[in-house]
Parts: sequence; C-alpha cells; structure tokens
Amino acid sequence: MALLNNLIEKLQWLPGIGRKTAQRLAFFLQKMEKARVQELADAIVRARTMLHECSICHNLSEHDPCEICRNGKRDTDRICVVEQPSDVMVIERTSEYRGTYHVLHGVISPIDNVGPDDLRIRALIERIKEHPVEEVIIATNPTTEGDVTALYIAKLLKPLGMSVTRIARGLPMGSDLDLADTTTLSRALEGRREL
Amino acid sequence: MALLNNLIEKLQWLPGIGRKTAQRLAFFLQKMEKARVQELADAIVRARTMLHECSICHNLSEHDPCEICRNGKRDTDRICVVEQPSDVMVIERTSEYRGTYHVLHGVISPIDNVGPDDLRIRALIERIKEHPVEEVIIATNPTTEGDVTALYIAKLLKPLGMSVTRIARGLPMGSDLDLADTTTLSRALEGRREL
Repeated sequence: MALLNNLIEKLQWLPGIGRKTAQRLAFFLQKMEKARVQELADAIVRARTMLHECSICHNLSEHDPCEICRNGKRDTDRICVVEQPSDVMVIERTSEYRGTYHVLHGVISPIDNVGPDDLRIRALIERIKEHPVEEVIIATNPTTEGDVTALYIAKLLKPLGMSVTRIARGLPMGSDLDLADTTTLSRALEGRREL
Repeated sequence: MALLNNLIEKLQWLPGIGRKTAQRLAFFLQKMEKARVQELADAIVRARTMLHECSICHNLSEHDPCEICRNGKRDTDRICVVEQPSDVMVIERTSEYRGTYHVLHGVISPIDNVGPDDLRIRALIERIKEHPVEEVIIATNPTTEGDVTALYIAKLLKPLGMSVTRIARGLPMGSDLDLADTTTLSRALEGRREL
C-alpha cells in the first residue's frame, strides 16, 4: 500500500486534515472516476502555477493587471484594503462594493515575526501617491492584529489627504444580544447610528 | 479568479469538503511551495491510476498479488473478511493478525441497491474451494448491513467445513458503562468470558 500511504501522508499537509480524514479522502479518490481525479489534480497544479500577484492590487490572478483592476467600470477613487485574496472573494460576493482592492497578504504580527515591510503596505502608499484616491476603506479583520495594521496604514495615509475609513463592527445579523461578547457589544454601542 | 474558482469547485467533489473548506484549502495551496503542490497532485493521480484490486484478496495494491498475499510469512490458513481496503489498513495497524484478507468492497444493502453479486463474495467462495482454510474471520462493521453480510457469508461457508467466526463486540476500551447504548451493553454481556 505504499502509493496509498504516500497519498495519505501528503494529504495531511493540508490544514485541518489529520490522518483519519486523509485516509477517508484517499479511499474516496479510489472510487472516483479516473478522469475526474486527473481534473482535480490538474486544477490544483494549474491554480498554483498560473496565479500571480496583480502588480496593482496584489490580488491573485492569472492576468496582470487582474480582472478587477482592468475593469473600466470599477470606481478607481476607492480602494478597499484586505488581508488575503480570499477576503476579496468574500466582499465581491456581496455585490455591494464597486471600488478596487489592495491585498496586504497578511497583517502586522510581531509574534509571528511579520512587520510592515513583509506586507504590501509600501506598494499601497506608492500606488496612491501615483494615482490619488478619495477614500481608502480598511477591511482587515476585527482582531488585534487587524486593528494594529489598520491604524498603522491610516497613520501613513492621513498626511496624503484622503478619507481613511474602517469597516463597521457590531452585532452580526441574526445574532442575539445575549450571545454577544462584551467587546463586540461595546463596539456596537460605540458605532450606533441615528435611525 | 477563474482558476481559483475552478479549484474551489473541484475540491468540493471530496466528501466533507464544503465551499468554505474548499476555499481555505485553495488559498492554502497558493502559499505552499510549488514543488510540494506538484508532489501532492502526483500522489493523487498515481494512487488512482496505479492501484488495482489484488486478484486473490481484492485489496487495493500496486502489485498483483498484493504485498500481503505475496508475503510467505502470513498464515494462509486464516482469511479475515472486511468491507473496505481501509479496514485492512486498520487491522494491520494492530500488528495482531498474521493471516490474509478478503475485501468485499461493500456490504449487502438493499436500500442502496447492493446485493451479494455486487460484492467479492463469489470470489471468496471460489478462493476457499481452491485453497481450503481453517478459519474465516468475518470483520464486517457492527451494523445491520455488516451483520446481514456476515450471516450471508457464514451460511455459504459452513457447508465447506471450516470455522467461521465473527469479531467480538462489546464496550470499547476506555469507555464507560454509563455511556454505552443498550445494544452494545447486551452484546458485551452476551460475549462475556471467564477471567
């Protein structure tokens, strides 16, 4: 079973996949049509080898500039700053936002040895100096690291004279006051708006 | 993001992987070294294309006969009948069993339209007629389907004059009487042994 053990071992490289899940996946793959297994393997390799960072927004794309940066209908006066390419996908799914993006590829995190120079922050500043914008919306995650990164970027951008905003935090839709943690609740109170 | 969406879609072919997990895996793959991604994809394809059923025991192997059937040190007087190739792996890990195996590739399950002829039962009977054995240990799962399949096979084998046994069922190690369901508990009582 060397081939099978090899596959089970390699599947465990993936996050959240332990020995049991890897085994289940490996045996499932044995029952799948060969052509489909080949398709899956090709999709993995192609996505990894053909995706590159867009030279403007640093999102992952098979084109440079990426689809969003090339799209003439997007509002180039607005840049939404996010941590990861996956965040672009999440925001795009809302169909609310028509501006452009800037992907940092991480957050400032001294514990993980990630400083500002490890992110695409300098590229953001240069991008804005070259093409000034009206607003930069910082949509890093509502975590300590996300907040620190947001403040750091805001400090650098403010002197350039534009509006720098942070996405709102508060109670998620469909949740219950009872279940909210105190920090979320106090942020929700802070961020209250007139009805 | 066509390539990425394509990958995310195909990852969802796998069991237990929904959209969110597929997304997480897809982005994780982007951060992995290209060489390792290629290795993973190769392992998937090779396992699927190079593994075949052993003509003796019907386990999956890159060789025919498989490693276990070819191994001169195994006790060929004993055959352990299991549902899936993964069960062979599980039993081998105990290092308790030195006999050979027979993989059914399923269980009798009228709901799923699986009858005896869809399994490797006929192959088992022929194998035993050709090379008689002392004992057949039926290690199908302790489920209704597993029990039905075990009884069906036992009925066919008994006239051939060998011992047909079923793996014991009882309380799992480290568990608690309080937590056992009544069926498990009554089977544990039934199967009691002198100390």
